[in-house]
Amino acid sequence: MDTKQLLILSASVLASSFGGSAMAQGSKDPYVRVAEIEIDPAQIEPCKAAVKEQIEAAVRLEPGVLALYSVADKENPAHVFVFEIYADAEAYKAHLETAHFKKYKSATNDMVKSLKLRDTVPIRLGAKPK
Amino acid sequence: MDTKQLLILSASVLASSFGGSAMAQGSKDPYVRVAEIEIDPAQIEPCKAAVKEQIEAAVRLEPGVLALYSVADKENPAHVFVFEIYADAEAYKAHLETAHFKKYKSATNDMVKSLKLRDTVPIRLGAKPK
Repeated sequence: MDTKQLLILSASVLASSFGGSAMAQGSKDPYVRVAEIEIDPAQIEPCKAAVKEQIEAAVRLEPGVLALYSVADKENPAHVFVFEIYADAEAYKAHLETAHFKKYKSATNDMVKSLKLRDTVPIRLGAKPK
Repeated sequence: MDTKQLLILSASVLASSFGGSAMAQGSKDPYVRVAEIEIDPAQIEPCKAAVKEQIEAAVRLEPGVLALYSVADKENPAHVFVFEIYADAEAYKAHLETAHFKKYKSATNDMVKSLKLRDTVPIRLGAKPK
């Protein structure tokens, strides 16, 4: 492979990388959900650890899990949002059946005070193309 | 630049690309905010158009705007979430001063019934590395 071919390959890899404008402008939007979790204030740290572990496994092991972004409200650390991007609704259904997700649900069952799950319709998923 | 140098450069560009695991594992987490907007039900479409336009401009023009993901609740299309990822808090402050953001705020002033802005602390920002 010469330098020119390599440049073209690099450009192509970059253009198709997740987070690029391709995601938002492609023929099919991904399937996005917003989860809102209220954690028992006494169990914030173990719950956050379980969330982290679940996200790492899901992103690594599931081709249809494009992103799982979890953040805590700075004013109220027990209030957590997870912004979930799946390739499609099937990928979300498959995610619910994985061993790591079931382990997470069982481990956090007594830590979560309330859970709001929202099915959404993307308006615009804008991200840096590189 | 020879092929080897180019390969190293490509690998470095890929490793630092947004959405990669580098983002979550880097020395500094990005600055993330969650906005919740309640739109006047009679003005959903023009408001969504203004949101789209603002996001496209911000992602294209501002180096510190890494991603702006806007979605509407499927059960209630007037309820909109924007998951906002900035390089740092300075990039967010700079964003508020841009012409496209000010235009958006002014255009949607009478369309937005309520607005909840949340400052957050990332727990885990997991995304496919490619």
